[in-house]
Amino acid sequence: MTSAFPDRLAALVEERRSQVVLGLDPDPAALWPAALEEELAGGGDAPGGVPERTAGAVARHCQAAIAAAGPACVAVKLQAACFERLGAPGWSALAETIEAAREDGLLAIVDAKRGDVPVTARAYAQALVGGTPGPYGPVPGLGTDAFTASPLLGRDALEPLLDAAVAAGAGCFVLVRTSNPGAAEVQDEPPERPLYEVLARLVHELGSETVGESGLSAVGAVTGATRPDLLARLRELMPRAIFLLPGVGAQGGAVDALGPAFAPHPAAGLVSASRSIVNAHSDRGGDPAAAAAAAAEELRAEAWAVAAQSSTGL
Amino acid sequence: MTSAFPDRLAALVEERRSQVVLGLDPDPAALWPAALEEELAGGGDAPGGVPERTAGAVARHCQAAIAAAGPACVAVKLQAACFERLGAPGWSALAETIEAAREDGLLAIVDAKRGDVPVTARAYAQALVGGTPGPYGPVPGLGTDAFTASPLLGRDALEPLLDAAVAAGAGCFVLVRTSNPGAAEVQDEPPERPLYEVLARLVHELGSETVGESGLSAVGAVTGATRPDLLARLRELMPRAIFLLPGVGAQGGAVDALGPAFAPHPAAGLVSASRSIVNAHSDRGGDPAAAAAAAAEELRAEAWAVAAQSSTGL
Repeated sequence: MTSAFPDRLAALVEERRSQVVLGLDPDPAALWPAALEEELAGGGDAPGGVPERTAGAVARHCQAAIAAAGPACVAVKLQAACFERLGAPGWSALAETIEAAREDGLLAIVDAKRGDVPVTARAYAQALVGGTPGPYGPVPGLGTDAFTASPLLGRDALEPLLDAAVAAGAGCFVLVRTSNPGAAEVQDEPPERPLYEVLARLVHELGSETVGESGLSAVGAVTGATRPDLLARLRELMPRAIFLLPGVGAQGGAVDALGPAFAPHPAAGLVSASRSIVNAHSDRGGDPAAAAAAAAEELRAEAWAVAAQSSTGL
Repeated sequence: MTSAFPDRLAALVEERRSQVVLGLDPDPAALWPAALEEELAGGGDAPGGVPERTAGAVARHCQAAIAAAGPACVAVKLQAACFERLGAPGWSALAETIEAAREDGLLAIVDAKRGDVPVTARAYAQALVGGTPGPYGPVPGLGTDAFTASPLLGRDALEPLLDAAVAAGAGCFVLVRTSNPGAAEVQDEPPERPLYEVLARLVHELGSETVGESGLSAVGAVTGATRPDLLARLRELMPRAIFLLPGVGAQGGAVDALGPAFAPHPAAGLVSASRSIVNAHSDRGGDPAAAAAAAAEELRAEAWAVAAQSSTGL
């Protein structure tokens, strides 16, 4: 890439007198006939199973759309969901379609709306505009010109994505006001309470018809263990939701502060730990498997004891 | 699946006396030695390139962690980012790891934090807990027991995910209060303004050091074309951001109301259209390629004319 994304885009807009972005949200059930005919022309014996053949047809469909509409456009916007629903072959079709757009002089925007805690945001950045170091050498990412990102997790979650984008000469589009009707309730309402309360009420309402025999709802909530002071209020707002509690261990959350999560039922709180189990050997020494088994068992016993004291039943 | 997710979970928690979820965020540069040794034992000539070999080692690492720590846990939480950064082979490793967890009696939670407009949310649901119909038969999704979802887009964006989860006997964990320090600014602040204003200020601030020669920033904003009444205010808050404007055409947004987006520069607004171009033949008749080319060219001319009237320069 020779210049930064905004400048590449600006030059292309002026050159093509166009601001149009071709959205590619391929639906395998509504592909252009030509995308299917190519396989038929090959005798119908294309290699691979259903996912591979479907992803191949999706890639051909996108290439045909790029060839037809591309000259009036400056970029394509590839909807990640439509590719990843086809599994590994779909991910290959996504990479192939980015290449096809580039070959036709278009910029590629991957519409992925990714957003996660900082360490995970770095992994998403590697997938989109970077590469991943590993034991056999680096694994290249998609190398897209730009991507969309969700800002729900805040500034520290956006920064790794933005830093990686800028380093790669790429751009990032942050969701500010989305186009769907339901955006109004979360994004526009004159707010009377913090966002987490708005979201907690929404989760409780959406889950109220999915309560099982256990008394727990199929609509749970991610509620970080790093803010245990909020848990009692969140439990009050979502009495039947299963809380998934990340942040114990490496992020500093303490299990003994999680009582309110377990109040309705022993299964109403799930304590999620990654590094503190899988990397336990770096603190404890010894074999990774033995260290992980010991760390998991200690966490189990600790959480079970807290839950036993806190569960009062639904 | 024999019963709903909350009930399967409740039974497992009681049986194992555990609320522990084993988080799997595999870093290829920090895998357990055993995951690498297996390939070495095979003579170092495992098939495939770097991505395939890396993804294979990641899958073995996850399986070893499940075997070691699994007995103290009720579920695994698989961080999608860590698999998708390895491309198509990474997606296969994700599917394989879900299977491995299931075989050890654990529930699988895919931590994907997906969230998008309703039509796209349905595609994500197909990827996670459903399947995708297509010309060669259905393509199965990951078939996970549960997944995480982002509620930023609101109720209508969550509903397709929740409906699909319930239909599959799966569960969904909605982000309510995340565990990272930066969550406070977006999720907890006593709000004085609508969320889109909070986010717009954040985008402007984060982008201020990424402004290129064009005067535009590498940090853009997704601002739906369906609420053109907000555009002037959003432009005021983000004078150098490129606006990506979905919602024209099929979703009802009108190009002639997008003037404020183009105000600073002709490239400061990008008009994204998917179905109204790719499916233009269903309204216009004729060949899909010819219809798409005509629809894209019409949109180009229309947007260029609006931009020409609106761009006053930075």
